[in-house]
Amino acid sequence: MRLTLDVDSETPIYQQIRDQIVTAIATGDLPAETPLPSTRQLGADLAVNFHTVNKAYDLLRREGFIRVNRKSGAVVRRDPSSGPPEPGIADAWQERLRTLLAEAVAHGLTGDEVLRRSGDVLDSFTPEAAERKAP
Amino acid sequence: MRLTLDVDSETPIYQQIRDQIVTAIATGDLPAETPLPSTRQLGADLAVNFHTVNKAYDLLRREGFIRVNRKSGAVVRRDPSSGPPEPGIADAWQERLRTLLAEAVAHGLTGDEVLRRSGDVLDSFTPEAAERKAP
Repeated sequence: MRLTLDVDSETPIYQQIRDQIVTAIATGDLPAETPLPSTRQLGADLAVNFHTVNKAYDLLRREGFIRVNRKSGAVVRRDPSSGPPEPGIADAWQERLRTLLAEAVAHGLTGDEVLRRSGDVLDSFTPEAAERKAP
Repeated sequence: MRLTLDVDSETPIYQQIRDQIVTAIATGDLPAETPLPSTRQLGADLAVNFHTVNKAYDLLRREGFIRVNRKSGAVVRRDPSSGPPEPGIADAWQERLRTLLAEAVAHGLTGDEVLRRSGDVLDSFTPEAAERKAP
C-alpha cells in the first residue's frame, strides 16, 4: 500500500488517507482480509501523527470498509467482490452522488460529459477491463 | 427557493444550504442573475443563525456559483446554460468524483449500477428530458 499525501491540499490529511485506502480497495490493491499497518507504523511512514492515522481508520471502520481489533489490528473487511452493499448504504451514497453531480451540472458540464467522465473513472479502477474494451 | 434542513443529519447546516442552492441551480430553479435572499432573511426563514447562512454564501462565492456585493447582495452567477466550466474546475471535480465512485465500487456496486444511478440522478435534474426519453 503506497499513500501519497498532499500537505498543501484543502483536504485534511486523515481524509486523504481514508480516500486513498478506499480507492485501493476499489482498484483491488487491497483485497478483503488484507491487514493494514498499525497506526504508529503508518504514521511513521507518512511522517504524520498516529492520531491522524487513527482518525482515518476510525472513519473507515464506521463506514464498514475495515474492522479493527486489539489483537489483529486493522483489516480490510470487504472488497468489490464481497457482493452488493446493503440498500441503505447504496441509497445514502446516491444522495451524495446527487450533490456532486448537481455541482458539475451547475458548473456547465453536460449530462453526457458527466457520464463520460464517470465511465473513465470507473475504467481507471480496472485498467485491464478498460484495455479489453479498447479497439 | 425552498430549502429543507435536516438538523439530525451529519452534514453541517451551512453545507446543506450550500448543497441545496447548487442543486437548485442544476435543476434550473435558480437561473443566472436570480437574487438570493439576504443572509438575515434566509436565516430567519430557516430559523438558523445568519452567520451560518453567511458561511454557505461565502462557500458558494468561492466556488464561483454566486457573486456577492454590498449593494445588490448575493446573486446567482451562472447556471447550466452559461457554458462549460474552465478545465481546472472540471478536473478538480473529477478528482472528487473519483473518490466518490471508488467508495461505491469498494462497497460492491458494479460499474453498470454506478452509471445507472448516475443517469437517474442526472434525469432527476431535468424531469422533462427524462420523460421525453421514456417510452
